Amino acid sequence: MLKNTLFFKTTKFENIRSYANRINDEFESGDIGYYHLIDTSLKLIDESKEFIKDKEYIKNIILVGMGGSSCGVKALKDLLFNQSTSLKNLYIIDNTSSSILMEILECIDIKESLFLITSKTGNTIEVISIFKIIIGYFNLKLNELQDYFIFITDKDSNLHKQAKDLNIKTFFIPNNVGGRFSILSAVGIVPFCFCGYDAKDLLNGARACFEDFFIHKKDEILQKAYHYCTHKNANINVLFSYNDIFRGFNEWYIQLIAESLGKKQGYKRIGLTPIALIGARDQHSFLQLIMDGPKNKTITFLKIKNLKNSPIIPDINFKFLDSSSNNIKLQELLNAQCDATMHALISENLSVDLIEIEYLDPWHIGYLMYYYELFTSACGIMLGINTYDQPGVEVGKLILKNILNSR
Amino acid sequence: MLKNTLFFKTTKFENIRSYANRINDEFESGDIGYYHLIDTSLKLIDESKEFIKDKEYIKNIILVGMGGSSCGVKALKDLLFNQSTSLKNLYIIDNTSSSILMEILECIDIKESLFLITSKTGNTIEVISIFKIIIGYFNLKLNELQDYFIFITDKDSNLHKQAKDLNIKTFFIPNNVGGRFSILSAVGIVPFCFCGYDAKDLLNGARACFEDFFIHKKDEILQKAYHYCTHKNANINVLFSYNDIFRGFNEWYIQLIAESLGKKQGYKRIGLTPIALIGARDQHSFLQLIMDGPKNKTITFLKIKNLKNSPIIPDINFKFLDSSSNNIKLQELLNAQCDATMHALISENLSVDLIEIEYLDPWHIGYLMYYYELFTSACGIMLGINTYDQPGVEVGKLILKNILNSR
Repeated sequence: MLKNTLFFKTTKFENIRSYANRINDEFESGDIGYYHLIDTSLKLIDESKEFIKDKEYIKNIILVGMGGSSCGVKALKDLLFNQSTSLKNLYIIDNTSSSILMEILECIDIKESLFLITSKTGNTIEVISIFKIIIGYFNLKLNELQDYFIFITDKDSNLHKQAKDLNIKTFFIPNNVGGRFSILSAVGIVPFCFCGYDAKDLLNGARACFEDFFIHKKDEILQKAYHYCTHKNANINVLFSYNDIFRGFNEWYIQLIAESLGKKQGYKRIGLTPIALIGARDQHSFLQLIMDGPKNKTITFLKIKNLKNSPIIPDINFKFLDSSSNNIKLQELLNAQCDATMHALISENLSVDLIEIEYLDPWHIGYLMYYYELFTSACGIMLGINTYDQPGVEVGKLILKNILNSR
Repeated sequence: MLKNTLFFKTTKFENIRSYANRINDEFESGDIGYYHLIDTSLKLIDESKEFIKDKEYIKNIILVGMGGSSCGVKALKDLLFNQSTSLKNLYIIDNTSSSILMEILECIDIKESLFLITSKTGNTIEVISIFKIIIGYFNLKLNELQDYFIFITDKDSNLHKQAKDLNIKTFFIPNNVGGRFSILSAVGIVPFCFCGYDAKDLLNGARACFEDFFIHKKDEILQKAYHYCTHKNANINVLFSYNDIFRGFNEWYIQLIAESLGKKQGYKRIGLTPIALIGARDQHSFLQLIMDGPKNKTITFLKIKNLKNSPIIPDINFKFLDSSSNNIKLQELLNAQCDATMHALISENLSVDLIEIEYLDPWHIGYLMYYYELFTSACGIMLGINTYDQPGVEVGKLILKNILNSR
């Protein structure tokens, strides 16, 4: 179960009915592919398992990808990969800064490694550059690349064309699935399966969210989107996630919201600004600003109700030190801190909601990620923008080409 | 050399003269201790070296601290600790979420470990709780705690009183140095020295920044603060740091700005909202929103000019893949991406500035951190608030006490 409690005033359903219809139209049109990945990705699970099953010698899976090609997988890794023991290590290379890249290359044995080169467009300069550095570092010949690399990209992209030239196995992202909505496509499913996890549970969780929204007509997502899009003073949206393991998820959330909802529309500039925090840590950092600073923020609290393996704080009493947390689980202290902070913000009349995850498992994370994708689509419709493009990043790419070509 | 270039319109000096005088008064009053750490921390370096010099058996330094007690050390660790080889590993525990804590405890040998329990007030519930979990995990007797723990706290705090009871070595944070301004006090100096690094260079860099500001009267900091505090539409301040190793520094920046500058003042709520990004990665995440979304952001770009050990992108030409980055260092590509993105934002008439660090070493990082502390003080003076308190976080602490006591 995933429970979402809204602590702000909701609106009458008639005010959001038209938006509900439009998101339904968007789903039924088939133009936006991510809605349908809960079905279309099923056979991908079999394809991934089939590919990896006789490759027990592979100990390291190294994903190379930027933005939508890595954020979601990072989220899955941080949340789920420590829980049980995978037979393979997953490394993620998502930047052109060199220290992490070189550390990874130095610690792996190429004979036990498989690189997933992921780029939807097939043209991402960071990914292509790192691909070449890997080839150079291990002194690989072009005719042996097929042993160490697979590509994940759109059909007929330049990366796909190159794959055919080099005889490299390629998994495809559907053309109508945007990068930041691609976690349930090959981008996420392939590494998840390669590392031995059950991607069916992930899809089942997402399907449950789909059904709650489209079939059972639960309206929290639409209500929250409506509040965010009409509460003009509060256009900064804080996600306060209580546990370090939400770090990757926070990055994914920021990419999803910022790139989807920051858009020009004629002469107007529209956008919600996402901020993601980790509790309890950032109570000692950002909380002061939320409590006493301008009321330009909404806040979503995110917590896990039941977490395995949390240690108990021992019943040791020191003369001068606080004993109020003695004898409880550390996770209980963390969740009590979440509740306390939430109620402090509610008492300041800030817009707050709470997402509670019953257990930490692929089903719940599939639900959570689909929840945020639907939420983003709903906001996009309410703001009247194109949620699925990213025209603003092209100028910088052109300037970069000029800089590099003028060398 | 650290160079700060402002790409927005600056003001005449007469408009900022009064603020310059007031920050000078604040410095000369002696009330705000961080200004003076460049002098007062000198003898702490000797004290730290003296304490650790005959303890070669210690392989692991584990810092336990929240907010100001850990953010700055994390920044130093990420930026400087990978550069050369330290004789000791530094671990940082900065949250009540259990996974990282338990991983660290499982991988260390207690006989080779020293825990730094850091809390300015001496009452931080997270730190006290983790202190007890460590004692319980290793089954330590109270009379042997002095072998494995040192405390870093204010004189006469509860933690100091407890230290006297347990005979535990304590390093002091000056009473008039706030947590988020404490990186050059025992909070940062002690772990830095324990791990074998030269804290004198750190202080020398900070002193150079002090002299540029107070003696050579360089005015970039005041100009930038003035622009931020008067540019009311743009109250979100983005720091775009180009390299993964700025991750900890970004966290430190967020804490410094958010907790210092988000304050109530009578019925008014005042504050700048910090956001920190990592380039090139977040060009694929947040950049779209900055380019096309509301013009409510200023952007500081931060880059390292000369970085050692950056690999060269090999000159491999594939039929279908981009070759424009062939034959250059990865760091050159990263810096070209920084320049390209910066010029794209300038072309949208956004407020941009650039900080260039010549080399990555303690001197430059000392300069950079002191730069941001002075900048924060200048903003506080211009906004007319108390930069150094954090009254807004107390309500949540009271609610937490009630929750815990009602169990």
